[in-house]
Amino acid sequence: MAKLYVVGIGPGNYENMTIRADRALQSCDTIIGYHVYVDLVKPWYPDKEFLTTPMTRETQRCQMALDEAMKGKNVAMVCSGDSVVYGMAALIYELRGENIQPEIEVIPGLTAACSGGALVGAPLTHDFAVISLSDRLTPWEKIEARLTAAAQSDLSMVLYNPASHGRPDHLRHACEILGRVLPGDRLCAVARNIGREGESWLTCTLEQLPEQEVDMFCTVFIGNAMTQSIGGKMVTPRGYRHG
Amino acid sequence: MAKLYVVGIGPGNYENMTIRADRALQSCDTIIGYHVYVDLVKPWYPDKEFLTTPMTRETQRCQMALDEAMKGKNVAMVCSGDSVVYGMAALIYELRGENIQPEIEVIPGLTAACSGGALVGAPLTHDFAVISLSDRLTPWEKIEARLTAAAQSDLSMVLYNPASHGRPDHLRHACEILGRVLPGDRLCAVARNIGREGESWLTCTLEQLPEQEVDMFCTVFIGNAMTQSIGGKMVTPRGYRHG
Repeated sequence: MAKLYVVGIGPGNYENMTIRADRALQSCDTIIGYHVYVDLVKPWYPDKEFLTTPMTRETQRCQMALDEAMKGKNVAMVCSGDSVVYGMAALIYELRGENIQPEIEVIPGLTAACSGGALVGAPLTHDFAVISLSDRLTPWEKIEARLTAAAQSDLSMVLYNPASHGRPDHLRHACEILGRVLPGDRLCAVARNIGREGESWLTCTLEQLPEQEVDMFCTVFIGNAMTQSIGGKMVTPRGYRHG
Repeated sequence: MAKLYVVGIGPGNYENMTIRADRALQSCDTIIGYHVYVDLVKPWYPDKEFLTTPMTRETQRCQMALDEAMKGKNVAMVCSGDSVVYGMAALIYELRGENIQPEIEVIPGLTAACSGGALVGAPLTHDFAVISLSDRLTPWEKIEARLTAAAQSDLSMVLYNPASHGRPDHLRHACEILGRVLPGDRLCAVARNIGREGESWLTCTLEQLPEQEVDMFCTVFIGNAMTQSIGGKMVTPRGYRHG
């Protein structure tokens, strides 16, 4: 019976995929996804069938994946980063509902908290929150409340979708909210194009963060009270040295 | 010049490692780590030198990795899950300080939020907090404050280290804290031995969660207000169906 794999491909380079994701993509007939992600994997699996839909057509894309699998094909729906963390796995389950066909296998991948964290240093050695600044599907008030709660309880933070074409100011607004709780010299970092052409990163203070140019290919890290710069890297000590 | 790789090996099976982690472990001379993780990778790279230290000797283990690399060996320090998320990368940076030798390359891996999330369903489609219930290096009051803040701002949660030999009651205490804010029927899940022998998972309500037997090889998921059971899986919808 055909199978639908929901595959987290990680940040976008072949080496940062898991062996399991690679095997699933090798074994499938059809690869479906947002065109940017399909274009990333195409050179590695050139003999597959490729199907894409435009950016905001997530429901259409997931339904297409279910339909193709029901036709008897082995289908891989590719997601950037992880398949679960802001990924398509939930929508695939929703659309299948209580049916048991097609069989679904969710294959995890490196989310930007991990791939970007390793790039900027070691910022997530302690508890942290992952918060998307996109208000396309979440009211901004809820995002504000989450930023405030995370800051007040000294959680490090990873901010996904810090800006998009339609909304360039989300990061600046988030910094205003965080600045009401956190000191201006709190260490932060920006990772850009992780694992892809043009990969870069920088550290700065919370005060300097609104001046950084960010786009939808950036991930932002906010340190906790212990986070420090060591050899230029953003490092949150766990406290092991006293252990 | 010799290099020190800090490698996240993921949940513990070969397939869930990244291609990059596999290549680093293939290319190194010496693999260092906590003996449980070294035993996991030993069968895949049998011709390496292996060095281990007991559980709480993190500083000794990381210093050993730095020292071996300074002798001219290519060394891989293996971490369960990710190398940054509660991993050893920060301590390696701390111990090296402002020195530029040995060269360090941090290689990310699947953290339990991702590998466990894919196992129980798709619980992290929305913003979430990752919180360790171990109070070995964090005061319990701080953990409580983070649980409360996450619950009040409707973050899903992933709880690492829900119990250990010394402290079997941490999850029960956490459930008490969460129960002051969240309804008793909030959907939760427990993932056990992800990617290893004895892998299993279950969903239950927050009210039922304290009755579950958990150990240090379990990861616990707490849903947000939208999380639901679909086909037996724990699913947090992102809201795409309205898009």
